[in-house]
Amino acid sequence: MELIFLGTSSALPTKFRNHSAVALKAYGEIFLFDCGEGTQRQMSKIKLSPMKISKIFITHFHGDHFLGLPGIIQTMGFRGRKSPIHIFGPTGLGKIMEHIIKLGYFSLTFDIHVHEIKKGVIIEEEDYKIECCPMDHTIPNFAFSIIEKRKPKFLREKALSLGIKPGPDYGKLQRGQSVKIGNKLIKPDQVLGPERKGIKIVYSGDTRPSPEMIKFANEADVLIHESTFESKHGNKALENGHSTVSQAAEIAKKAKVNKLILTHISTRYKKTDQLEKESTKIFKNSVIAEDFMIYEVKRIGD
Amino acid sequence: MELIFLGTSSALPTKFRNHSAVALKAYGEIFLFDCGEGTQRQMSKIKLSPMKISKIFITHFHGDHFLGLPGIIQTMGFRGRKSPIHIFGPTGLGKIMEHIIKLGYFSLTFDIHVHEIKKGVIIEEEDYKIECCPMDHTIPNFAFSIIEKRKPKFLREKALSLGIKPGPDYGKLQRGQSVKIGNKLIKPDQVLGPERKGIKIVYSGDTRPSPEMIKFANEADVLIHESTFESKHGNKALENGHSTVSQAAEIAKKAKVNKLILTHISTRYKKTDQLEKESTKIFKNSVIAEDFMIYEVKRIGD
Repeated sequence: MELIFLGTSSALPTKFRNHSAVALKAYGEIFLFDCGEGTQRQMSKIKLSPMKISKIFITHFHGDHFLGLPGIIQTMGFRGRKSPIHIFGPTGLGKIMEHIIKLGYFSLTFDIHVHEIKKGVIIEEEDYKIECCPMDHTIPNFAFSIIEKRKPKFLREKALSLGIKPGPDYGKLQRGQSVKIGNKLIKPDQVLGPERKGIKIVYSGDTRPSPEMIKFANEADVLIHESTFESKHGNKALENGHSTVSQAAEIAKKAKVNKLILTHISTRYKKTDQLEKESTKIFKNSVIAEDFMIYEVKRIGD
Repeated sequence: MELIFLGTSSALPTKFRNHSAVALKAYGEIFLFDCGEGTQRQMSKIKLSPMKISKIFITHFHGDHFLGLPGIIQTMGFRGRKSPIHIFGPTGLGKIMEHIIKLGYFSLTFDIHVHEIKKGVIIEEEDYKIECCPMDHTIPNFAFSIIEKRKPKFLREKALSLGIKPGPDYGKLQRGQSVKIGNKLIKPDQVLGPERKGIKIVYSGDTRPSPEMIKFANEADVLIHESTFESKHGNKALENGHSTVSQAAEIAKKAKVNKLILTHISTRYKKTDQLEKESTKIFKNSVIAEDFMIYEVKRIGD
């Protein structure tokens, strides 16, 4: 499971940082969180094909978070994409997509499924679920979490002691189906361990430090949180609906996350040593994201 | 007068080439020809401010030539631009701009003047005029020329012999006004030399090799012409409404231009030595454009 930072700047792009976008390679899919202008080029620079994106999540409708959509959609059409794509975002996404698909001449060779989201679970698959939660910005902004639905451990010794031989029955039980051994019905919970915590990744979009985030990101393996300014520009953060590095680090601490990755860095910071110092002081396991940074998300413990 | 190549790729961006855009710094203005996705970032990379762009010319409505407009407009608003901007393009520009200004939340702090163009002179200023001419692509595409209106030489010796003393009268005559010396009326043409050819720059947009271009680019100082493919992919060029390098070079030769700059290079060409060889064989003074290439346009001769 890999997080690939495609754009880590705030409102304006710089030489080294493009507008917001983070890709997640997981569960045989590519998920894209935000899609600022130039995201398709960032992807091409690290040979990540937009054709493989299955789902795009837009946190809010400030241009630096979604103006890469028209180009990436037209490129998918140009390259003859057939598989549908799902795009999720706040109320108004439908209208915006109507405008986007009228921008010039191009072939739309695939279906676009538009989902306007409300707080709660927005995707429920066998392997994972995705939830969203409103945050606190100048306009509606949603944070997203993607949570692995980890299967419980199969208790082989217990299965053997119940007389179940290795083979197709093991698979059935693991998938939650009962099996018959002689005239005994064996239920899955007889051979499966307790529920196990799956990998949880949270992406904030743009937000003030929010108590909602502390709950939403609770015990996440990775929290990707905006931190547009350092503490001494706290007034600017407040004014523009953003967080400072310290505020984001406090959130991470209170939410008991494992790793904090800070992004959406103001153009005023050419170097980020000072920001990282500010963050690690409050929350040790934190890092300032850079464009093309790849973070391998690993399960902690068992 | 400087031409700054901001994007020289064809439909898809590459690591080294962004989508189409060329800036011209001249007459105290910045003119932008095409504005592919990511143009604002290309500009920021070479410290060229979008705030100083006065006029944008869109050749046609394929995404790689105009999808940078929403971002650049929102950035101008974000930075509090006050001066109006003029955008020129084929029929349909008005509708497209209506969609563009509905893409999300942003402040439009300045006026956008939209001009749908037809063949002929589209701008006439004291120092220059701009013309457009339809070319031959799969959808309507216009080429643009920007022509300096060069003032005739002031014949100082002749003025002195007519009894006009150096001073404000010289300026009046140079500006085309008559002056009275004693009871004699001196007309400008008595002290001005013959008309002089001003600098002419032509930009093709996407086009098949077109006889119209030979006339339109006649004796241009610089012709910027698309050349998506090398000759051996002539069938692909034909199929997609593009020119090969050789075809563009032939156009330059027939139009008797001074300098040919080739752009809109297919992603298949990582190196362009072969393309340049193909071009210079037919038209010696030619070069393959690269992103961030700056070409200083100088007057030839007097």
